[in-house]
Amino acid sequence: MSLIVHKYGGTSMGSTERIRNVSKRVAKWARAGHQMVVVPSAMSGETNRLLALAKELQPAQVTPAVMRELDTVAATGEQVSVGLLSIALQAEGVDAVSYAGWQVPIDTDSSFTKARIRRIDDARVRADLAAGKVVVITGFQGVDDGGNITTLGRGGSDTSAVAVAAALEADECLIYTDVDGVYTTDPRVVPEARRLETVSFEEMLEMASLGSKVLQIRSVEFAGKYRVPLRVLSSFTDWDIPIEQEAKSGTLITFEEGLKMEQAVVSGIAFNRDEAKITILGVPDKPGVAFRILGPVAEANIDVDMIIQNVSNDGKTDFSFTVHRNDYPRTLDLLRSDVATATGASQVAGDPRICKVSIVGIGMRSHVGVAAKMFRTLSEEGINIQMISTSEIKTSVVIDEKYMELAVRALHRAFELDGEPAVA
Amino acid sequence: MSLIVHKYGGTSMGSTERIRNVSKRVAKWARAGHQMVVVPSAMSGETNRLLALAKELQPAQVTPAVMRELDTVAATGEQVSVGLLSIALQAEGVDAVSYAGWQVPIDTDSSFTKARIRRIDDARVRADLAAGKVVVITGFQGVDDGGNITTLGRGGSDTSAVAVAAALEADECLIYTDVDGVYTTDPRVVPEARRLETVSFEEMLEMASLGSKVLQIRSVEFAGKYRVPLRVLSSFTDWDIPIEQEAKSGTLITFEEGLKMEQAVVSGIAFNRDEAKITILGVPDKPGVAFRILGPVAEANIDVDMIIQNVSNDGKTDFSFTVHRNDYPRTLDLLRSDVATATGASQVAGDPRICKVSIVGIGMRSHVGVAAKMFRTLSEEGINIQMISTSEIKTSVVIDEKYMELAVRALHRAFELDGEPAVA
Repeated sequence: MSLIVHKYGGTSMGSTERIRNVSKRVAKWARAGHQMVVVPSAMSGETNRLLALAKELQPAQVTPAVMRELDTVAATGEQVSVGLLSIALQAEGVDAVSYAGWQVPIDTDSSFTKARIRRIDDARVRADLAAGKVVVITGFQGVDDGGNITTLGRGGSDTSAVAVAAALEADECLIYTDVDGVYTTDPRVVPEARRLETVSFEEMLEMASLGSKVLQIRSVEFAGKYRVPLRVLSSFTDWDIPIEQEAKSGTLITFEEGLKMEQAVVSGIAFNRDEAKITILGVPDKPGVAFRILGPVAEANIDVDMIIQNVSNDGKTDFSFTVHRNDYPRTLDLLRSDVATATGASQVAGDPRICKVSIVGIGMRSHVGVAAKMFRTLSEEGINIQMISTSEIKTSVVIDEKYMELAVRALHRAFELDGEPAVA
Repeated sequence: MSLIVHKYGGTSMGSTERIRNVSKRVAKWARAGHQMVVVPSAMSGETNRLLALAKELQPAQVTPAVMRELDTVAATGEQVSVGLLSIALQAEGVDAVSYAGWQVPIDTDSSFTKARIRRIDDARVRADLAAGKVVVITGFQGVDDGGNITTLGRGGSDTSAVAVAAALEADECLIYTDVDGVYTTDPRVVPEARRLETVSFEEMLEMASLGSKVLQIRSVEFAGKYRVPLRVLSSFTDWDIPIEQEAKSGTLITFEEGLKMEQAVVSGIAFNRDEAKITILGVPDKPGVAFRILGPVAEANIDVDMIIQNVSNDGKTDFSFTVHRNDYPRTLDLLRSDVATATGASQVAGDPRICKVSIVGIGMRSHVGVAAKMFRTLSEEGINIQMISTSEIKTSVVIDEKYMELAVRALHRAFELDGEPAVA
């Protein structure tokens, strides 16, 4: 008997018929003798609907007091889901009980709309499991010390599931989603993309941070910190496929390198075109220049991704970084009005039509020449590299947006990731 | 400075535009220096939508465990409302904070779907009021000793508002609704019906129990028990009418008879056609006969309203009672199959096409001949009375459904309740 946590996304919970399918799948696992905890998201579209109502009413300035109320409103979507799923489970003849975040309780800090989990009290859940019940817990939310409802931010249900699995020391946390696993790259761009049977935690972390939307990055960090075995698999298989088959499907995110069967140097190609590039030219190269440029950007609550500073030339340097495309005009204004004069820069230039392409692989640690092979491949396709950034297990480049598909396909082939074309 | 509780129904909360109007009205009261607590219902249609989803999933047998989940689901409607209203209030520049039932907390028993309030802890609310905040509290719900969410049943938000007002010893509880007060009878039937400026608690209780839909009967009982001054008024007046005018509009439900300015013997005419009549003829008149007839009916969970037993004649009696029209076929079956033979009755007859018309008035206590005047009025209109039932402050008759409007209009005129015809 294992203790298993299932997490179902909004699409899997999107209608009463789909909820019934989820209940049948969970019932199958429960009847196989497993202790089951389920963390469902809100029904698809529900969180957006609720926040749209709030947006129509909210003041221009969204204070913490307003954010507290946004969380109170948004948290109801998951509360509806846990209630409905528990009802469906009981209709399947399975004893089930639902809990909202505050009922577990899942303690968080008080950062409304983006709270962090601090502690999960597992006593109530363990007692229910011991009594043979399936426990259904709201994703996305918790409660702070003041008894206020908090939410974890978009995609927070993944984090909730992993945190619950960590608190209960679950044997595995299964994330059911609308894709059937983690791929070497996006199959919509590269038909030859292959599903990975396993991927290391660190690779997954890089892929998530690079824009692969399979899992919320915070949930991967959490899984890494508490070493929760995590599996991403499809919720669209028939609910009644044999449990042994289902238990091995999807992609296992693992912490033990010995378990990793695939020895490819590069595990996957990640990419995104959500970013924009900004370059400050001719900045006098004095101590503190990076802070004088990025300090005001951080203060304006703008997230910076890649940061590149070239070596100094004649006491002047060029400084580049990328921000989310939505923040691009605001960042440019900020730099042109305040920062450029303060730093004595000669020019501020920018380009929103870029993309970032990254190769990710734990094998890069022990293999030389991986980055060089990436650069050569792009060069052979005539693609100019604008920025480069590296970490231990990934190399990212910024290129012109229009070459994105070409670059991804070429790299996928060059690193021998191509499999049989996926069936459409 | 007074402490005022406002309650807004689902129609008043039916859209973001209407919620904004509610927030402007509440802000007006807060700016006039009152300490304000607001209890809103779920947005109209929301509770039905949620329960319909649950109904699609629920098992044939609705156990307490299922009812617990129904409450978890249904309670979200009010949670959305309090969050949205608090946001709207903050957009009006008014400091506001929302609480779900469990956050106050509003302690209830564990009768899921029809819980009863046991205790309201007012400490948190009082601290917020002292800090100058408007406090917005969910209607319809509470929390039991086990930390489970409970709901009070349909219309429970009225009860929540009155209970909160009682706990806080509020100066007045204003129930904003889609009618502008309590009328001498339904203006759709009698255009000359007048709005009552005041009505006694006991009269209101009778009218509510007789089918007048203005207030949930439990809320009136609660108001009576804790002597909470209650005012029913319209939420469809412009939000910016002068507060002095608004504070005197609608109908005040009062506990001090000296306050009652209108000295009419009869305050109103109530009626409903939701009932059906069942008569058991020729029952041997032995001790226990009423129980042998009504015991099985109660066991079948059928509510009985009027009960009449005629004096015995030749050791046999006729026994009549009314049930809700929906329960009529089931009741008839039950009596014909089991009860009639068990009691030795000669015949079971029934009629679903009846209506009940009642005159209600605290003045009836001290005036003789009120019932006689009622019977004479109906007789003059050629209306046959089938059943009669009386209490200290009301007299009800059952008549043929087709005479309902005629009877109500004649009685309204006879008891001098007619005012100027209402403007259409």
